[in-house]
Amino acid sequence: MSATIKDVAKLAGVSISTVSRVINNSKPVSNEVKKKVLDAVNELGYKPNEVARTLVTKRSYLIGVVVTDIGNSYIAEMVRGIEEVGKMYNYDILLCSSYGDLEAELKFMQLLKRKQVEGIILLSEIVNEEVIDKLDELKIPFVYLNRYFYIEDFPTVTIDDYQASYEMTNYLINLGHRKIAYVTVNEDEYSLENFKIAGYRKAIEEVDGCEEILYSAKGYSIDDGYEMGRDFLKLRDKLGITAVFCSHDEHAIGLMNYFYDNNIRVPEDISVAGYGDIKIASIYRPRLTTVKEPHYDIGAVAIRKIIKELKDKDQKETIIKLPFQIVKRESCEKI
Amino acid sequence: MSATIKDVAKLAGVSISTVSRVINNSKPVSNEVKKKVLDAVNELGYKPNEVARTLVTKRSYLIGVVVTDIGNSYIAEMVRGIEEVGKMYNYDILLCSSYGDLEAELKFMQLLKRKQVEGIILLSEIVNEEVIDKLDELKIPFVYLNRYFYIEDFPTVTIDDYQASYEMTNYLINLGHRKIAYVTVNEDEYSLENFKIAGYRKAIEEVDGCEEILYSAKGYSIDDGYEMGRDFLKLRDKLGITAVFCSHDEHAIGLMNYFYDNNIRVPEDISVAGYGDIKIASIYRPRLTTVKEPHYDIGAVAIRKIIKELKDKDQKETIIKLPFQIVKRESCEKI
Repeated sequence: MSATIKDVAKLAGVSISTVSRVINNSKPVSNEVKKKVLDAVNELGYKPNEVARTLVTKRSYLIGVVVTDIGNSYIAEMVRGIEEVGKMYNYDILLCSSYGDLEAELKFMQLLKRKQVEGIILLSEIVNEEVIDKLDELKIPFVYLNRYFYIEDFPTVTIDDYQASYEMTNYLINLGHRKIAYVTVNEDEYSLENFKIAGYRKAIEEVDGCEEILYSAKGYSIDDGYEMGRDFLKLRDKLGITAVFCSHDEHAIGLMNYFYDNNIRVPEDISVAGYGDIKIASIYRPRLTTVKEPHYDIGAVAIRKIIKELKDKDQKETIIKLPFQIVKRESCEKI
Repeated sequence: MSATIKDVAKLAGVSISTVSRVINNSKPVSNEVKKKVLDAVNELGYKPNEVARTLVTKRSYLIGVVVTDIGNSYIAEMVRGIEEVGKMYNYDILLCSSYGDLEAELKFMQLLKRKQVEGIILLSEIVNEEVIDKLDELKIPFVYLNRYFYIEDFPTVTIDDYQASYEMTNYLINLGHRKIAYVTVNEDEYSLENFKIAGYRKAIEEVDGCEEILYSAKGYSIDDGYEMGRDFLKLRDKLGITAVFCSHDEHAIGLMNYFYDNNIRVPEDISVAGYGDIKIASIYRPRLTTVKEPHYDIGAVAIRKIIKELKDKDQKETIIKLPFQIVKRESCEKI
C-alpha cells in the first residue's frame, strides 16, 4: 500500500499541515523541518495525490498544446521540443488535436481551462478569432506557432521568412537560373507568404534578366502541389522556367511526384526547392533542397518562453526569431 | 464571473447535493429534478471544476497513451483513432512520448497513476518488463499496440500477420518472381516477425522453383534499410534475386533510396514490397506496394475496448484482429 500524508507526518514528527506546506511550497518552514519532511517523503516513497494537490496549490504543472494534426512531421517535431523542455521543468503536456475542426478548438479551450493549465501553445493553421478571444479571456501565457499566418503582437517563435526566401532565391540565381517561379498559396493579409514573396521579389529585382513568376497553389498539402502540376508545366513551357521555389516543402514534393509521373526529371529538366525541411524532404529522391526551419527548437523555445513568463509576468519579448539554414541537396543543380 | 454550483442549485430550486448528484451521476434522482438541474446548468453556462470533480467522483475521464515517438506517421494515425473515438465518449487523452527512453516510460506510469487515468494504451516498440509490472499493479484496463512484438495474453489490436505475409508473397509469386528475398529484423521469441516469416515460408514452400532467402536488417528504421543496401545488392547478384519483400515499409523505403543512389531501378531491376502502408509509402516514387495495416482503426478499436471494459469488467476478448489489405502499386511488376 502506498504511503499517505499521515505516514509522512508521523515519521517526520510534524503535523500534517507542515508536510503539506513543504510539499506545496505554500508557506515558509524552517530548513531543518523541511529536511525532516523530505527525508520522510523519500524513505516512504510518498507521492502526493496530484488531483488534490492542484486544488490546494492552484498549480497544475500542465501546459496545454493545441495542434491541428500531430501527423504532420513538423508539428510532431515542435511538440517533441515542447515535451522535452517541459519535462526538464516538471511540466506535463496536455495535447489536443483538432484535425482542423474549429468547434473542436473552441471546446479544447474550455477543457484546458477546466484542467487549469498554466499556459497554452497553439499550433493551428487557421486563425480562429473565437479561439483568440478565449485565449485572451484565460489570461495565461500563450504562444502561437504557425507556418502560415502572422499576427502582430501575438507571441510567437519563428524564423526570418523574408531573409530565408531572399537567400534561397539568390542560391538559385547563383546556380545560373533566371526564370525562377515562386509557388505561393493565397495572399491573405495575415499570411506569412507576404514576407516570403517580398524576399523572393527582392532577389529577382536585383539581377538583370530575372523576372518575377508567381504561381498560387490551392492549399498547403502534397496533394495541392500535385494538382497544380499540369497547369504549372504549361506555364513552364510558355515562359521557359528552369527552377521552381515552393513556399512549402509539401508543394515541392507534390510537384516532384507529378513530374515523376509525367517523365520530367528533377533536377535535369527542372530544379525544385522547398521551404520547411519536413521529414520527407531528406527521405525523398532526389533529396529536396530547402530552407530548414528549426522545428524542434521552435517548440523548445516556445515552452521556455511560457515558463519564463510564469515566473516573471513582465516578459516583453513578443516575437523570437531563430536561425534558419539553406540546405543544399540534389533537387537543384546548375543550369 | 462564472456560475457556481450554488447558483445552479438556487435557480433549479434544489439543494447543492442534488446538483452534485446529477452532474456526477452518482446517485439516482427523478427525471423531473434532473431536467430542472440540467436546464439551470445550461442557462447559467455552469462548468463544474473538473479537478474537484475528479476527487468526488473518482473518475478522471482521462485515458493515458504512452508512445515512443508521435513523429512516426503510423503512431500518429493510431493516436488519431484513439483521440477521435475518445472524444465521442467524452474521454480526454493524456499523451506521453518516451522517445524510446525506458526510464521515461516508467515515470509516465507513475504520472498516469497520479493523474488517475482510467485506462492506458501503450504503443511502445520495446517490451519493458518493469513497465509491464507497473501496468499490472495499476489494475486498470490497458491495451498494448505494437508493430514489433507479440505477448500472449496481452490485450492487443492487430492484423493477421501470418496471413498477410502469405498473401503478399503469393502476389509476388503470381507476378512471376521465384527468387524472392524476405527482409526481417532480429528473431526475438516475442517478435511478430515469426508470424510473418512463417507466412512467407508457407507461400515459398508451395511453389516449385522458389527458395527461401532471409535477410536480417539491424533495426526498424529507414536508415537501417539504407544501410543494408550494399550487402543486399551483393546477395542479389549472387542469388539472382528479382523481388524483395520487407517486413516493414521503413526498410523498403531505405532500400529503394539505396537503389536510387546506386542507379538500380525499381521496379525494372528489382521489385520491392513493404509492410505497414505508412504515410510515405504512397508519397514516395515509385509508390510502394505494401500490406496495409489499418492504423487508425487499430487505435479506434483499442480505446473502444478500454471503454467497454470500464463498463463491464468481464470483457474476455484479448486479441482483436482487423482486416488488412494488399495494396498494389508501382514498386512491383511482372518479371
